[in-house]
Amino acid sequence: MLTGANIVLVGGDARQLEVIRKLTELDATVLAVGFDGLSTPLDGAVHAELDGQLFEDADALILPAVGTDDDGTVTAVFSDKQLVLEEAYIARLPKHCKVYTGMAKPYLKDLCAKYGIGLVELFERDDVAIYNSIPTAEGAVMMAIQHTDITIHGSTALVLGMGRTGQTLARTLRGMGARVKIGVRRDEHFARAYEMGFEPFYIKDLAAHAGNLDLLFNTIPTMIVTAQIIAQMPSRAVIIDLASKPGGTDFRYAERRGIKALLAPGLPGIVAPKTAGRIMADCLGRLLMEDLRLGREKR
Amino acid sequence: MLTGANIVLVGGDARQLEVIRKLTELDATVLAVGFDGLSTPLDGAVHAELDGQLFEDADALILPAVGTDDDGTVTAVFSDKQLVLEEAYIARLPKHCKVYTGMAKPYLKDLCAKYGIGLVELFERDDVAIYNSIPTAEGAVMMAIQHTDITIHGSTALVLGMGRTGQTLARTLRGMGARVKIGVRRDEHFARAYEMGFEPFYIKDLAAHAGNLDLLFNTIPTMIVTAQIIAQMPSRAVIIDLASKPGGTDFRYAERRGIKALLAPGLPGIVAPKTAGRIMADCLGRLLMEDLRLGREKR
Amino acid sequence: MLTGANIVLVGGDARQLEVIRKLTELDATVLAVGFDGLSTPLDGAVHAELDGQLFEDADALILPAVGTDDDGTVTAVFSDKQLVLEEAYIARLPKHCKVYTGMAKPYLKDLCAKYGIGLVELFERDDVAIYNSIPTAEGAVMMAIQHTDITIHGSTALVLGMGRTGQTLARTLRGMGARVKIGVRRDEHFARAYEMGFEPFYIKDLAAHAGNLDLLFNTIPTMIVTAQIIAQMPSRAVIIDLASKPGGTDFRYAERRGIKALLAPGLPGIVAPKTAGRIMADCLGRLLMEDLRLGREKR
Amino acid sequence: MLTGANIVLVGGDARQLEVIRKLTELDATVLAVGFDGLSTPLDGAVHAELDGQLFEDADALILPAVGTDDDGTVTAVFSDKQLVLEEAYIARLPKHCKVYTGMAKPYLKDLCAKYGIGLVELFERDDVAIYNSIPTAEGAVMMAIQHTDITIHGSTALVLGMGRTGQTLARTLRGMGARVKIGVRRDEHFARAYEMGFEPFYIKDLAAHAGNLDLLFNTIPTMIVTAQIIAQMPSRAVIIDLASKPGGTDFRYAERRGIKALLAPGLPGIVAPKTAGRIMADCLGRLLMEDLRLGREKR
Ligand SMILES: NC(=O)c1ccc[n+]([C@@H]2O[C@H](COP(=O)([O-])OP(=O)(O)OC[C@H]3O[C@@H](n4cnc5c(N)ncnc54)[C@H](OP(=O)(O)O)[C@@H]3O)[C@@H](O)[C@H]2O)c1
Ligand SMILES: NC(=O)c1ccc[n+]([C@@H]2O[C@H](COP(=O)([O-])OP(=O)(O)OC[C@H]3O[C@@H](n4cnc5c(N)ncnc54)[C@H](OP(=O)(O)O)[C@@H]3O)[C@@H](O)[C@H]2O)c1
Ligand SMILES: NC(=O)c1ccc[n+]([C@@H]2O[C@H](COP(=O)([O-])OP(=O)(O)OC[C@H]3O[C@@H](n4cnc5c(N)ncnc54)[C@H](OP(=O)(O)O)[C@@H]3O)[C@@H](O)[C@H]2O)c1
Ligand SMILES: NC(=O)c1ccc[n+]([C@@H]2O[C@H](COP(=O)([O-])OP(=O)(O)OC[C@H]3O[C@@H](n4cnc5c(N)ncnc54)[C@H](OP(=O)(O)O)[C@@H]3O)[C@@H](O)[C@H]2O)c1
Repeated sequence: MLTGANIVLVGGDARQLEVIRKLTELDATVLAVGFDGLSTPLDGAVHAELDGQLFEDADALILPAVGTDDDGTVTAVFSDKQLVLEEAYIARLPKHCKVYTGMAKPYLKDLCAKYGIGLVELFERDDVAIYNSIPTAEGAVMMAIQHTDITIHGSTALVLGMGRTGQTLARTLRGMGARVKIGVRRDEHFARAYEMGFEPFYIKDLAAHAGNLDLLFNTIPTMIVTAQIIAQMPSRAVIIDLASKPGGTDFRYAERRGIKALLAPGLPGIVAPKTAGRIMADCLGRLLMEDLRLGREKR
Repeated sequence: MLTGANIVLVGGDARQLEVIRKLTELDATVLAVGFDGLSTPLDGAVHAELDGQLFEDADALILPAVGTDDDGTVTAVFSDKQLVLEEAYIARLPKHCKVYTGMAKPYLKDLCAKYGIGLVELFERDDVAIYNSIPTAEGAVMMAIQHTDITIHGSTALVLGMGRTGQTLARTLRGMGARVKIGVRRDEHFARAYEMGFEPFYIKDLAAHAGNLDLLFNTIPTMIVTAQIIAQMPSRAVIIDLASKPGGTDFRYAERRGIKALLAPGLPGIVAPKTAGRIMADCLGRLLMEDLRLGREKR
Repeated sequence: MLTGANIVLVGGDARQLEVIRKLTELDATVLAVGFDGLSTPLDGAVHAELDGQLFEDADALILPAVGTDDDGTVTAVFSDKQLVLEEAYIARLPKHCKVYTGMAKPYLKDLCAKYGIGLVELFERDDVAIYNSIPTAEGAVMMAIQHTDITIHGSTALVLGMGRTGQTLARTLRGMGARVKIGVRRDEHFARAYEMGFEPFYIKDLAAHAGNLDLLFNTIPTMIVTAQIIAQMPSRAVIIDLASKPGGTDFRYAERRGIKALLAPGLPGIVAPKTAGRIMADCLGRLLMEDLRLGREKR
Repeated sequence: MLTGANIVLVGGDARQLEVIRKLTELDATVLAVGFDGLSTPLDGAVHAELDGQLFEDADALILPAVGTDDDGTVTAVFSDKQLVLEEAYIARLPKHCKVYTGMAKPYLKDLCAKYGIGLVELFERDDVAIYNSIPTAEGAVMMAIQHTDITIHGSTALVLGMGRTGQTLARTLRGMGARVKIGVRRDEHFARAYEMGFEPFYIKDLAAHAGNLDLLFNTIPTMIVTAQIIAQMPSRAVIIDLASKPGGTDFRYAERRGIKALLAPGLPGIVAPKTAGRIMADCLGRLLMEDLRLGREKR
């Protein structure tokens, strides 16, 4: 339980409502900034204004999926006010307080480093990335259904990368009846893909596989679907690029060749905000219980 | 092969392009009415005008998925002209000529009966219905992803009916990681569902299962998701009704209770027109070869 | 419940212990013949001797999986005595009493017909056949693992017949990672097999598929794996024939060609007697409740 | 290709025949010791006697799955002679020659270290361990079918460890229709197991899960299925321990409690020697091509 813990939560979207629900369930005191426009009550949390004093007693500061932008602005879909996480606020956080967010831009990283405040990026964690891969895969499936005139069942789908997202996506597509080829670079991923019933190939041989596919899903965050690769692809092919911006596809060339190519960031928050929120909430619940217990012991 | 066969094709959408492609591949002479607005050439078929004479030499008449409406009008998305299949046309068809369509309204059925013309409804065939169940299931999946804030993976999904569509849908949902309960009325469907890893229940016990579900998919073409059932459902539930119009759901009551309920007809043509077209084309190819061979032998 | 029902159970193996357990649970009076050698107590049933009077008050007579042999002998693995179901016994059964067994030989069928006694063959029921297909498939899997030097995963396995056993076996093999080709004769089975991710072919084209396979499983109860087919098969192939005796394989020719071919009858009772017993017990429980209720209403 | 390479292969079973086949296919010169009793010819390899000179020109020395025993003896199922890998032999190997085996005992490790000879243990490689997990899982499945009276389908199966073997086994059991609970210790394994449709739990909570299971498969190579755990298990449970000798089960206590517990080492070589041999052969082929090319470049 988080009884007695003072948690400040700033900004966010529907996902943060799941976080608030979880933390109040665990009996924490939650002060929520940026939810003034919400039509429903706040499940046991207290509305608060962004104000330096707020930070002085915080045991934890929770920011949304993308913590701040490059200038410190925090997105808040349930508020019209502009929220900026100023340096002064971080400066006032007690030393045992940590900042939790999905991923942090340099602005936030630098501030935390400067003031010796612990920063936890949830999306960097393997477990969170794996849980998030599920809504990501479903978002990719939805796009594939929307943007092709064929079924996924019976199609030949290439998945590039067998990391946390690629493996889930490959399994999902196969569960729907696609023939799944997966591009890997490690021998053990090749072996695991074979065991799981995919058709593995080494990414260095991608060109040899580009000629025969209906769907290409990329999860590798580097330029991998180059003009040379696209040149080999059949014109019916559709590219869905999941890698973080700017993706791994030569979109300009794809357009020139008339091949549909879509960059699809942030799918969990779009297709399954409640699930995505619960993933963050469950992880935060566990981490806070652990961190605050340890913190208390140390103090 | 269909060498020498004279085939008249009237109206339709992208699916009929697959049919035309297939039949010309099989070397038939295809006279296509209602494709004048098409921007690309017609793959070996000949554009024709709707005219009584056209029907005199026809070995087969092919109409779209829904043959005609109640007044004989044939839908043609690639033409601005209104196409009406007049009685006089059917009257001029040679006796060995059959009419092929997805499903026929009474208008068409009556005319064919009156003039002793064979009528083949493709969607009535078990094999076609099973092939079509694949794009139908993917359409249902797409809608579930779009209209919920959770993932299909990990959700509890009820499928009502274990016919041609229900079985495919259940398998697809399970392949994506849902917990699938399936409502049946036959003992052997109960057994098969258990064997396939679903959780079967008897439709008569539906009320007992309505309280715990995230998604309800109906394939039973009769009023089955009644107000009493909807009253038991959690408010987060989403109903996707696939049964032919008017569906099997009390939509009025669902709306009153604030439960999202969607009627989703014609999914194959919407989410995968090319696959849906190929299903029709492949079946038509086989049937025409068989029927015309038999016809010739008899004459 | 079966309170007040008088049930005579003659002979059988471990499977009947599950039947006895179920029926006594349902509060029936069970008189069991042929369990005198059992080392454990009989879960609420009463040991009885085979004797004409026993049959006079019977509401139901339960025989084992294979009711009697051609001369009326009933197998009883837990007894040294020879049990013969004499005509005189059947003659003494009350008219409302039915005989329940797995499958009946002509001896039993003729007697029941002669005395107007209802005869229920459980294994003929679709639901029972489907439930039994599960241990059958696992038995076939066990034999394939034992009798090959390769893994099922990655092998090419042919399943002949997509009936109650064939479909389950195909699903099981695919779940283990085999490439499964399935031989069917109906268009709708072809479609369903495609939908389920198998590679269907028409049985009439079997010869064309015999050249490339590791495992062949037959479920078609007629001579289908003929010398001509076996002649095409690679010498590494292993044939596992599940069809009821004498199977559908030319075993003599297979031996001559040095191809391992195994007839594998009665797998459920061998590999999973408890599961097989429960399948019979559950079905009997439901049937008896229904039949005795109806019987009572009629009388 | 391995043209010009001199490869000495000593001892082994059917698996090594696949290795010989592969290496001669790659055009290596293979000198095989310990195959004199083989009834079939040696696929392009040459029979040789164990003799110091043999080793002087070797580019690679290949030993069986278990290289030597603690005294240097090499198992050779196709020979009656006793083969001992003497220190003098290793001493005569050229410096660029490496020794390849499945796993090495201290005897072999020490000798290689002493003479500066590279030693490659194939079974330590992730990819080889994953490929081998497939026949291991099938062997475990076979044992479960043989040693229970229920089906795997519908059973509750616990898998301990989600390493290379555990993951494959869990997937295989689920593919057959078991309810699979998997014991892990890492958060990311918990997440991946959830994504794959297993029910994960933390190994530290094993006791809480021991009460409700039919099958327990252990892959953790440490004492994990202790008397305390076994004490909680239902008496019908069967334990199949795959961890390397002495396994992770208190076998003595299991026996006392009358719970069937089986240690099952070396399954790949037992249930699928050909597949197991090909795994070694494919890996050796790739490694030798790489190593000998590098070796040549360096020299
Ligand atoms: N669109 C969305 O909604 C969404 C959601 C979640 C994640 N993402 C993004 O998706 C991407 C993948 O995320 P993840 O969690 O799956 O990451 P991950 O687990 O690190 O997987 C990335 C994969 O790419 C491979 N890779 C990296 N560089 C490569 C190269 N040069 N050549 C070949 N392979 C290479 C890695 O191979 P190794 O394993 O061999 O290193 C790994 O398998 C990230 O950009 C992430 O931000 C997007
Ligand atoms: N939305 C779309 O895009 C789309 C696409 C294809 C089909 N459909 C429609 O979906 C529906 C199902 O098609 P289908 O091909 O799956 O048909 P189907 O094979 O006949 O299946 C219908 C199922 O409903 C069950 N059923 C019928 N009446 C029942 C009742 N009173 N109580 C309980 N169960 C009942 C049947 O049970 P038994 O097996 O016991 O008879 C059968 O399993 C039809 O209305 C069809 O027009 C819609
Ligand atoms: N070994 C065991 O332990 C065990 C256990 C259970 C059953 N069995 C035996 O296995 C066999 C199959 O049982 P089942 O319950 O699966 O029966 P089933 O449902 O009737 O299936 C038999 C299949 O064979 C097909 N078939 C029959 N004659 C054919 C022919 N001439 N050409 C092509 N296909 C043909 C049928 O096709 P259609 O569907 O088109 O009619 C059907 O799909 C039976 O002999 C049964 O006694 C053995
Ligand atoms: N019987 C056979 O035929 C056969 C065939 C192949 C392998 N094996 C044997 O099977 C065993 C597993 O092989 P593998 O290739 O799967 O190895 P592996 O990939 O290392 O997997 C071992 C698993 O055990 C877990 N583990 C180890 N110590 C633990 C502890 N104290 N508490 C909780 N979990 C622990 C590891 O967890 P972490 O991932 O968190 O480290 C890992 O998931 C080995 O003993 C191997 O020799 C036997």
